[in-house]
Amino acid sequence: MNKLLIVGTVAFDAIETPFAKTDKILGGAATYIGLSASYFNLQSAIVSVVGDDFPQEYLDLLTARNIDISGVEVVKGGKTFFWSGRYHNDLNSRDTLDTQLNVLADFQPKVPQNFKNSDVVMLGNLHPLVQSSVLDQMETQPKLVVLDTMNFWMDCALPELLDVIKRVDVITINDEEARQLSGEYSLVKAATKIHAMGPKYVVIKKGEHGALLFHNKEVFFAPALPLEEVFDPTGAGDTFAGGFAGFITQSENISFKNMKNAIIYGSNLASFCVEKFGTERMIDLDKEEVLSRLKQFKSLTQFDIEL
Amino acid sequence: MNKLLIVGTVAFDAIETPFAKTDKILGGAATYIGLSASYFNLQSAIVSVVGDDFPQEYLDLLTARNIDISGVEVVKGGKTFFWSGRYHNDLNSRDTLDTQLNVLADFQPKVPQNFKNSDVVMLGNLHPLVQSSVLDQMETQPKLVVLDTMNFWMDCALPELLDVIKRVDVITINDEEARQLSGEYSLVKAATKIHAMGPKYVVIKKGEHGALLFHNKEVFFAPALPLEEVFDPTGAGDTFAGGFAGFITQSENISFKNMKNAIIYGSNLASFCVEKFGTERMIDLDKEEVLSRLKQFKSLTQFDIEL
Repeated sequence: MNKLLIVGTVAFDAIETPFAKTDKILGGAATYIGLSASYFNLQSAIVSVVGDDFPQEYLDLLTARNIDISGVEVVKGGKTFFWSGRYHNDLNSRDTLDTQLNVLADFQPKVPQNFKNSDVVMLGNLHPLVQSSVLDQMETQPKLVVLDTMNFWMDCALPELLDVIKRVDVITINDEEARQLSGEYSLVKAATKIHAMGPKYVVIKKGEHGALLFHNKEVFFAPALPLEEVFDPTGAGDTFAGGFAGFITQSENISFKNMKNAIIYGSNLASFCVEKFGTERMIDLDKEEVLSRLKQFKSLTQFDIEL
Repeated sequence: MNKLLIVGTVAFDAIETPFAKTDKILGGAATYIGLSASYFNLQSAIVSVVGDDFPQEYLDLLTARNIDISGVEVVKGGKTFFWSGRYHNDLNSRDTLDTQLNVLADFQPKVPQNFKNSDVVMLGNLHPLVQSSVLDQMETQPKLVVLDTMNFWMDCALPELLDVIKRVDVITINDEEARQLSGEYSLVKAATKIHAMGPKYVVIKKGEHGALLFHNKEVFFAPALPLEEVFDPTGAGDTFAGGFAGFITQSENISFKNMKNAIIYGSNLASFCVEKFGTERMIDLDKEEVLSRLKQFKSLTQFDIEL
């Protein structure tokens, strides 16, 4: 089985939506990426850090999905990274209410020996120096390196971010971040500029408006599945990235044609994520549901015009 | 050749975008619908009204595209409908600066005898009583009636709007209007409620975020083509509707499968409309360009996952 190495936060989230509110629940980019990728045939490992306030049952949830957590450092006496946010009525935007870095402030990632030859590396949203450090530890060149990031690092660690962006094959960012990073409003122009920064593939996530994949002059688009209810968008972008990276790892094919499929798989998994709070929906998802929704994606987008 | 009857405004527009500004230029829903539909093999006619201030050269532009304008009344001493608007920087929203109904205030549509047996009727955005009056004048039941409307009529003529909505097969509205009409935020739920008002097909236009087609439990999505530059979004929705109605008229097939194709043709034509000011791009479009862009739509959306 091919190997996927995931770096990112494993965290506590407290979420408020127009419908409901949670206390501290399981969250974090690596958590969502790992859960999402676990629906593929692959070996995966998470590199992250938590405090000893982090419940064993949360770690067990990851292990139960066959995710290697030997790279998740538990800091004695440390507190786990905490994020709290409130979504607006349209669920498309949110305010951050609280961010407590805690053990993340001094995080030195350690890649498990067994994953230093991973086929695919998924760098979840974290300080770009942490992302670079993971790449530095690889003993063989991964077939594909995917990087997710956010506007926060563009604001306060741009040189380090540009350094790591140079080293990756795929970057996934949202539309506003693509505009900020490139200085271009048009996403087509933004993608061209971001290509020039290093990544051969640029994925622009537009939330409920789908995702675009750019590669040179080629472009592919996957919509988000129209849902009756969106309950909580937290983690949708990471779930998307995890589905994308997981499918590529399983299929071992980095052609543009196969990346299109990866985008569809990512969108498919993200459509489940938003149906319940936090990771709830992702944890008990069965493969039949995933397959059946993939059929919906086909009928949603495929047409028959002969040219 | 099959017949398409179009009712809607033929008007003067004055447009301001972040890039440039026009004086009074050719505009109006029926104008955009007619130009867009003229790229199909069909006979079309516009029912509308203008003042005698309307330049003959604008009418000649329509005639040159084989559009029958015998149903465009010219009111002696009357002034043509005028709309003026300013787009915000993102080009996704705009403010109306001025609306002068002029001859539109007393408009009594008269369907040319030769089009009272039209195969398809496209009711462009106008007072719902005008839309109803056109349907009343039909001598044979059209195979398909498509209605476009806007929030303005929901605010000030809702009962009349609901009456005409009952009589149509397809309604095309934007996402905000779908929410207002249905009272539902989720577009899936909104479509279900709008189905119950009469239309078997509900098309929700999301501007740069594409368009959704709902039919019972089925849903299809077409993205807008990602463009390097959007110059002026005016008329894009009407161009989309004209492409949709034009393709259905030509193909004489109102299956859901064929409606998917119609949505793609509509999106394809709308992607040209926004590339220049007003109707400029639509007037000199050649069929090769349309075909070539249709190929782009295929590669933008089609994938190969075997299920």
